[in-house]
Amino acid sequence: MKVVVINNLLKENHIILLRETAEQTGADLCFAASEAEIPEAYRDAEVLYGFGVNTARTSQNLKWLSVPSAGVDFLMKPGAFANEECILTNSSGAYGVAITEHIIAVSLMMMRGLTGFYQETLNGKWGAPRPQKSLKNSRITVLGTGDIGCCFARRARAFEPAELIGVCRSGQCEEAAFDRVEAISALEKVLPTTDLLVMSLPDTPETVGILSRERIAMLPEGAYVVNVGRGSAIDEDALADSLDAGHLAGAALDVFRTEPLPADSRLWGTKNLLITPHVAGGLTLPYTLDRNVEMFCENLKNYAAGEPLLRVVDRIKGY
Amino acid sequence: MKVVVINNLLKENHIILLRETAEQTGADLCFAASEAEIPEAYRDAEVLYGFGVNTARTSQNLKWLSVPSAGVDFLMKPGAFANEECILTNSSGAYGVAITEHIIAVSLMMMRGLTGFYQETLNGKWGAPRPQKSLKNSRITVLGTGDIGCCFARRARAFEPAELIGVCRSGQCEEAAFDRVEAISALEKVLPTTDLLVMSLPDTPETVGILSRERIAMLPEGAYVVNVGRGSAIDEDALADSLDAGHLAGAALDVFRTEPLPADSRLWGTKNLLITPHVAGGLTLPYTLDRNVEMFCENLKNYAAGEPLLRVVDRIKGY
Repeated sequence: MKVVVINNLLKENHIILLRETAEQTGADLCFAASEAEIPEAYRDAEVLYGFGVNTARTSQNLKWLSVPSAGVDFLMKPGAFANEECILTNSSGAYGVAITEHIIAVSLMMMRGLTGFYQETLNGKWGAPRPQKSLKNSRITVLGTGDIGCCFARRARAFEPAELIGVCRSGQCEEAAFDRVEAISALEKVLPTTDLLVMSLPDTPETVGILSRERIAMLPEGAYVVNVGRGSAIDEDALADSLDAGHLAGAALDVFRTEPLPADSRLWGTKNLLITPHVAGGLTLPYTLDRNVEMFCENLKNYAAGEPLLRVVDRIKGY
Repeated sequence: MKVVVINNLLKENHIILLRETAEQTGADLCFAASEAEIPEAYRDAEVLYGFGVNTARTSQNLKWLSVPSAGVDFLMKPGAFANEECILTNSSGAYGVAITEHIIAVSLMMMRGLTGFYQETLNGKWGAPRPQKSLKNSRITVLGTGDIGCCFARRARAFEPAELIGVCRSGQCEEAAFDRVEAISALEKVLPTTDLLVMSLPDTPETVGILSRERIAMLPEGAYVVNVGRGSAIDEDALADSLDAGHLAGAALDVFRTEPLPADSRLWGTKNLLITPHVAGGLTLPYTLDRNVEMFCENLKNYAAGEPLLRVVDRIKGY
């Protein structure tokens, strides 16, 4: 069984674990720094762990593609897989910790005026006190209750919010940290009492534009929005209008409709908008990379043993 | 019983609560925007709630001074009280929430490189991924296990640190969120295994310079320091040297030896130093102000009933 691993961030501990697992499973392992650098002899590999987009599109032999990301929208186009039977797994579960810390950091930066203080400090200015808000007693809604939404809920719970509501497709989610979980059909009922809206949705036909102009207007004045899912979920122009008009008190976007964010985007100049360049869940956090490799190795054992794989993407749902 | 309240941030709900409490306790209440504006007839008040530094120094009639801050170092000088019997209470317990959110925000800003991203964003630049660190699996030491240190520990626990150690004068602290609590005499044993040192100490003769040059050097390379207590606790010059040399990965200071931080301080230009202008626990957070007023009202009932007061400052210990 030929197995290709494409990842130029791997450290020695990851390579040791991958080699050990290969030995246990009888895998013939090949490391490549990029897809273009896969040696000729491994282009017909059965398994690929990495962003093997071109291989998936061209190789009839690929039976399992394991991507290191949680989002898989870039593999949902028709023709993405030459082998229609190829199993696709994602790495949902590796990013919850990093992305949750991002959500809490940017939420507090906005609520506590820390971006303003930081700007003043950069200019050597000792600023005056600013209005502060707190996660305590805030009404928090988490749109998307997958690994990221649930991991955030568990940490956010410690901050004693007034209410912590999950919203997801089914309205079913077993995470105990939520006060309750609503179906997406109830979203408009929840928005008017949301002080902080956290969005951690995949990019699917159902989530595109879900935070529309009308729904942004339903959020109370002074509310905050944080998006760590996919940029397609928000009407960016409506969000910018709301921020510039002072309806929303702040927004923190890590994901955008077009990435990198174009130089001429109005978002660069939007009031109270905190932009980060899609780094909330980077593999530059050692824990995330460790979990990512561990999860692939667990799954490789399942694959070799003929057991069902974990984290298989439902190509109909798109996540 | 004449009671003066000095606080120009009070909202209607606070004034209502204070008036109700005055009625219940038979207090003759007077509001003043500043100490200089206390009407002549109330200068001999028995009770003052506010920063009544001049009144304490000059009035023989003052029996109880309740300050809205947690720190009381500015009242520890000889001659601070004309009436040596005057009881001093602080507002420890009102600031834990705000200051904890500050600590977590600045820690994550440093560990996740968010200050760097923010600087790039201000210049319209879509930055490249940066190294990330996480509270998860970090070894956290909290120096000072009062209200703030304990409140932080409870929230930090949710982030799944590798170790969460409290350090205090006695080595005794009942907060269950700590893995263990050490006496200050064991500080040097703890520093070499501390990834994040959180300092929430009062300013007392024992805490001055407690984070000395020698002890900063005992922290491992890449450690972070956050100080929300008092600036006197740190050898600022040694801290700046360590940051500039790249030994410490970052520090976030909200308090300084001299405040406002002088324009010519080297700290403004110190590498990886996040400065905030003593705003971690401001009364601009409605929750903090609410708790502050509630706590005074509870204590006023105790005072009127001849019951022991809560939060009495020990003038020997200095907190």
